[in-house]
Amino acid sequence: MKLGIVIFPSKKVQDFANSYRKRYDPNYSLIPPHITLKPAFTVPDEGMEQLTIKLNEISNSNKPFQIQSTKFSSFKPVNNVIYLKIDSCDELSELQKKLNETIDIDNPEYAFVPHISVGQKLSDDEHSDVYGTLRMNQFNLEDTVDRFHLLYQLENGSWTVYETFRLGRE
Amino acid sequence: MKLGIVIFPSKKVQDFANSYRKRYDPNYSLIPPHITLKPAFTVPDEGMEQLTIKLNEISNSNKPFQIQSTKFSSFKPVNNVIYLKIDSCDELSELQKKLNETIDIDNPEYAFVPHISVGQKLSDDEHSDVYGTLRMNQFNLEDTVDRFHLLYQLENGSWTVYETFRLGRE
Repeated sequence: MKLGIVIFPSKKVQDFANSYRKRYDPNYSLIPPHITLKPAFTVPDEGMEQLTIKLNEISNSNKPFQIQSTKFSSFKPVNNVIYLKIDSCDELSELQKKLNETIDIDNPEYAFVPHISVGQKLSDDEHSDVYGTLRMNQFNLEDTVDRFHLLYQLENGSWTVYETFRLGRE
Repeated sequence: MKLGIVIFPSKKVQDFANSYRKRYDPNYSLIPPHITLKPAFTVPDEGMEQLTIKLNEISNSNKPFQIQSTKFSSFKPVNNVIYLKIDSCDELSELQKKLNETIDIDNPEYAFVPHISVGQKLSDDEHSDVYGTLRMNQFNLEDTVDRFHLLYQLENGSWTVYETFRLGRE
């Protein structure tokens, strides 16, 4: 199965992100707003049990933490993705690192920049227009992260939750 | 928060259902294919912890079970919903009953008919056409149910998973 590991922020943050994603993100209907901890990787069905055991260990040994977002940012010139920037946060970076070290499959070859995408597949002109407007926005979103989710992808490209892992339960 | 409790069947069953939902179900992009165990109910944010404790108790005291579906059916004349009929199954009925007794909020006033909706909000003519074709299909879907999910609804009508509850873990 094609899997991914994400954090779904609170309803408040998701609603805020969706108000932009609706217009600017073609993945709007495929997955709720999320922070990707581990991008798509593939595990055979018979490997799922072992994987969830590992994820349980990681979730048990990491505590809930706070995140904050105060602005939009963009990956341009690498790509035209506009996102809610999640402020640098040791607990989040540590969780991401542990997940990618423990599940050493299809690991990304780029640095972890915690974010919630709100605009994707924009042309250069669209990106310039939209980002020019969004970067003026001022806000202060704060949220508690106390869980992450293992997802799998369906044939239509959408994602279903396989399991939730709560942080620091034991 | 507006909540719901559902079973997501396996990827195989979800892909099968989605091949029909894509055309006939306006909720296609709001939620993956599912069996509703408890339809929408509302719980204040401060009640979530207590709710998840109750759901944990229920999931621990119910074992995984098999389900089967061999045909499409329809709720007409009550409404024009076409669905994958889930065969009668004691474990499923018991789980649904326990959930609705334990979480005695906004309980439905109709009998539990386990199903996966594939067509909704069809006109009478559409319903007649589509159901006339689908009811000829022969298949035998079998699946193991070993978890259920607590979801919450976002402002755009889509559903996000709050937590997964695995059956018979303890």
